[in-house]
Amino acid sequence: MDRTTHVDQHTSQRYSAELEGLRSSVLSMGGLVEELCRQALEALVRGDAELARKTVKADSQVNEMELNISAQCIDILARRQPAARDLRMVVGIIRMVANLERIGDEAAKVASMARKLADDRDRQTYLSEPKHLGDGVSAMLRGALDAFARLDVEAAIDIIARDPEIDREFKTLTRLLMTHMMEQPQRVKNMLRVNSCARALERIGDHAVNLCEEVIYLVDGNDVRHLGVEEIKLRHRGG
Amino acid sequence: MDRTTHVDQHTSQRYSAELEGLRSSVLSMGGLVEELCRQALEALVRGDAELARKTVKADSQVNEMELNISAQCIDILARRQPAARDLRMVVGIIRMVANLERIGDEAAKVASMARKLADDRDRQTYLSEPKHLGDGVSAMLRGALDAFARLDVEAAIDIIARDPEIDREFKTLTRLLMTHMMEQPQRVKNMLRVNSCARALERIGDHAVNLCEEVIYLVDGNDVRHLGVEEIKLRHRGG
Repeated sequence: MDRTTHVDQHTSQRYSAELEGLRSSVLSMGGLVEELCRQALEALVRGDAELARKTVKADSQVNEMELNISAQCIDILARRQPAARDLRMVVGIIRMVANLERIGDEAAKVASMARKLADDRDRQTYLSEPKHLGDGVSAMLRGALDAFARLDVEAAIDIIARDPEIDREFKTLTRLLMTHMMEQPQRVKNMLRVNSCARALERIGDHAVNLCEEVIYLVDGNDVRHLGVEEIKLRHRGG
Repeated sequence: MDRTTHVDQHTSQRYSAELEGLRSSVLSMGGLVEELCRQALEALVRGDAELARKTVKADSQVNEMELNISAQCIDILARRQPAARDLRMVVGIIRMVANLERIGDEAAKVASMARKLADDRDRQTYLSEPKHLGDGVSAMLRGALDAFARLDVEAAIDIIARDPEIDREFKTLTRLLMTHMMEQPQRVKNMLRVNSCARALERIGDHAVNLCEEVIYLVDGNDVRHLGVEEIKLRHRGG
């Protein structure tokens, strides 16, 4: 093997290692965001104000990870000038970390409402629906991160297909809260807080969909944002 | 001038024209998004269900512009391999169009609530605060787009500094709506709709801040996301 080939091979190995490092950074960030969602939900259901406080505070780590990973992406774009699938991977990751950061923000909102609701003795009467919604979006988030880890387009499509059910659940919950408020006006304040939690959870579902759209983009090269799930299936399975 | 220099110069002129074209596409998309916000607010205040319906429908144009501009950005990254400030411009634009698209979504939400509120004869009794909030965030959006057009970091910082006032206004409005709901439970449904409008407007303010952070990044190279406005001023003016 001559010297040039050796150097080339070395460079190419380092480049692959950099891209691999980038992917595992995204998965670490995803893991932290998942954990924050889990904690926020637990704090809400158990009325644990201390856990809620910790969860709000931990969101700053997510923000830091976003900045670090974005900087790594730009550095790779500048030094390596990636093409084709590698370029899509880097651009996809730039958008994915922005979504993960917003999921962290929404989890922090849930936690902040959980802290305010912790003193409500009637908590158990209205938390089973938000808990169910929260479990649904947490599963979507986990599925989106798995789809990214395995670069699995079929799995990503299956997650996207779950979002309409989340939206329906959110609407049903809003109507339920509205009825509570009309019947017991003294509970308006806390019902509005529960509604804020539900809305934040519903947004986490939307962001999980965005993550899945990026997975499809970086594997297939199809930008499927703003398409319905049926159209996405056609483009992927038909192409 | 020899032939190579001539070709180089020609290529470089085309490259500059491409970047310039990209910037003006973002400004066109921004102009459309601004117009949707204006229309959504007008539909809300005037109770104009037809204008509301048109505004919801026009959001798909915004989505299309996002896809087109993103594709242009990736194409430039692949063919031109931009460096330094040009690279920051392209990456900044990828993130900016995602924000503009979300502003379009929020404007569509306001419009969709406006349609549902159009029949309420008491509309005038509760719309002056949302109108004021909407005017505030519209001004922030306009300011953010101007700052981008002129690549003016000082102007971007001034817009970011306005956001806490918007957040305060949103909180005050939520408290006011809460009082209405407790005093007149039969109005809960519509007050929740007004609250959704207010929340969407507050988000538009957040996205305007994100746009300004991108302007600072692409001019200065400082990633100022998650910093307070005082820290941003220090980094910019001190650096």
